[in-house]
Amino acid sequence: MPTQQQTVRHVHQVARPEGFPTAEHFAYVERPLPEPGPGAALVENIYLSVDPYMRELMDEEWELHQPLPFGRAIGRVVASRTPGFAVGDLVTHGEGWSTHALLEPGPGRRVINPPEGVPLSAYLSVLGGTGLTAYVGVRTILDLQPGETVYISSAAGAVGGTAGQIARLLGAARVIGSTGSPAKVEHTIRRLGFHAAFDYHDGPVAELLAKAAPEGIDAALEGVGGDHLEAAIGVTREFGRIAWVGAISQYNNPADPPPAPRNLYAVSDRSIHLRGYQVRHHMHLRPEAEEWLIPHIQAGRISTDETVVEGFDQVVDAFLGVLRGENIGKMLVRIAPG
Amino acid sequence: MPTQQQTVRHVHQVARPEGFPTAEHFAYVERPLPEPGPGAALVENIYLSVDPYMRELMDEEWELHQPLPFGRAIGRVVASRTPGFAVGDLVTHGEGWSTHALLEPGPGRRVINPPEGVPLSAYLSVLGGTGLTAYVGVRTILDLQPGETVYISSAAGAVGGTAGQIARLLGAARVIGSTGSPAKVEHTIRRLGFHAAFDYHDGPVAELLAKAAPEGIDAALEGVGGDHLEAAIGVTREFGRIAWVGAISQYNNPADPPPAPRNLYAVSDRSIHLRGYQVRHHMHLRPEAEEWLIPHIQAGRISTDETVVEGFDQVVDAFLGVLRGENIGKMLVRIAPG
Repeated sequence: MPTQQQTVRHVHQVARPEGFPTAEHFAYVERPLPEPGPGAALVENIYLSVDPYMRELMDEEWELHQPLPFGRAIGRVVASRTPGFAVGDLVTHGEGWSTHALLEPGPGRRVINPPEGVPLSAYLSVLGGTGLTAYVGVRTILDLQPGETVYISSAAGAVGGTAGQIARLLGAARVIGSTGSPAKVEHTIRRLGFHAAFDYHDGPVAELLAKAAPEGIDAALEGVGGDHLEAAIGVTREFGRIAWVGAISQYNNPADPPPAPRNLYAVSDRSIHLRGYQVRHHMHLRPEAEEWLIPHIQAGRISTDETVVEGFDQVVDAFLGVLRGENIGKMLVRIAPG
Repeated sequence: MPTQQQTVRHVHQVARPEGFPTAEHFAYVERPLPEPGPGAALVENIYLSVDPYMRELMDEEWELHQPLPFGRAIGRVVASRTPGFAVGDLVTHGEGWSTHALLEPGPGRRVINPPEGVPLSAYLSVLGGTGLTAYVGVRTILDLQPGETVYISSAAGAVGGTAGQIARLLGAARVIGSTGSPAKVEHTIRRLGFHAAFDYHDGPVAELLAKAAPEGIDAALEGVGGDHLEAAIGVTREFGRIAWVGAISQYNNPADPPPAPRNLYAVSDRSIHLRGYQVRHHMHLRPEAEEWLIPHIQAGRISTDETVVEGFDQVVDAFLGVLRGENIGKMLVRIAPG
């Protein structure tokens, strides 16, 4: 199944942003399609992932005027000179925002065989890094128990939306989410099954959360920081747990993080466990997560919860959109037929 | 063994302080010595404990113009009408700053029989609440492992001094303390066996700690808050743990806590566990702690590390002194011969 195209297109970063990035920080470039050398395969990408964490990569990790690594993608092998990949294989990898990738077998590159009822794109959403982040946060870090009340920030985002669904399926008595628009509130409750949600623009987050959780919470999955973390601490009961998965509110201004919570001392007073984590340290839990998640996906109990944009020339806009919170669920770009 | 005195003396709180308390907030009062009723015993106190946490009790819990409860004490039974206490028994209890107490058997009141080589006062210091706080913090909350580097704030205080000794005996590769004077630095290293210590007045705590722990720390026991907590976060390695036992720096200004650490986001970035705890939730560990600590005390491997003031009329001054950090180790008041 040789590729039909004779060129590969890449997104390059061409300048370092100060604060919020724009389209001018990127360029679309076209190159002749390479042939795979011995031991490698050529993959034509189908789905590309755009994620908030990439904003941090823009400051240092992504080299200027080079293809951008680290972005997760799903593609199909179109030529192979390695026994690790056969032509036609579906492969997930991290070679980023390009139409094609040359891959040797190795860590982070695996052939997938989506079971009946599991869409291919799920391997970048609920079965991808964001889904694993949600699973690890709710099950491993929070160890959520049936009957507990849990608060999830960015509830309509890729991590939060999956986390809320996992919490519900684990028997949480009450799953409360904060989101950024009335449409997201609606989505979070109707589609994802949160028990309550609010738009954080409607007032101080602490007040909105206190109203949604009048009896307090047992656990929180927090990924915003600043006043969102402060609100979570404010309603966390004695011995409560807060899993802290990052601070999207600081990605654009790493040198000027949001103020730390003024009520931080409650962590000591109320014996709260505030635990930071990074999903990259928990990759060994992927098989366990897939085993748990796939039957729920197949039965329709977990939505893959994606916003899918069409076309490689939309990658940069999709990324800027996810930084502005325009996505509902996981933001993906489909660049070729699955 | 009837008591020789015919009166009981109490300390009463007579006014609510704003900020730092003074002697004017207290009064010494004398009353006729009561007789124990049926089911109770009269105890003549030997040692009284004065502790930083009592500053918080002054805002609400301690009733004005009443004997002050909640302070730990050790006394000897001088009259009894309960089978729970025999005349001559040594008893620890929490009836506070008085020369005598009427006690019925109950939780928090127990007869002690100090083994050979264990001084009576140890039951208010290394075997008392502060020692248990140190034990729980280092063993249960931090789960300190041999070869690790640990930082302990208030290292010459009652909790910190014991915690450092426990950490050393657990095989910590490096025990680092912050203290409030050159004499305390000396004491911490020479007497308590810390590997390094500094006087936090000598510069920004973060700089002093970074210099003392150039390769970072695995664990911290933090009880000051503010810039001390910030310093601890600053040097904590990935996956490091911080046990947060309170914030002495805020006791005098509960409405105006010290600023939260500006580097709090490192808790997320470096997967740090920040865990608050209160010793009152871990009282079931007392037998385990005693079993572990007593042989070390008997062998001289753990110092009871006390500052003992003589005379009941010194209670208020001793308490004010501990708030000013004048004590080295546990501050006790001896009011009768052991």
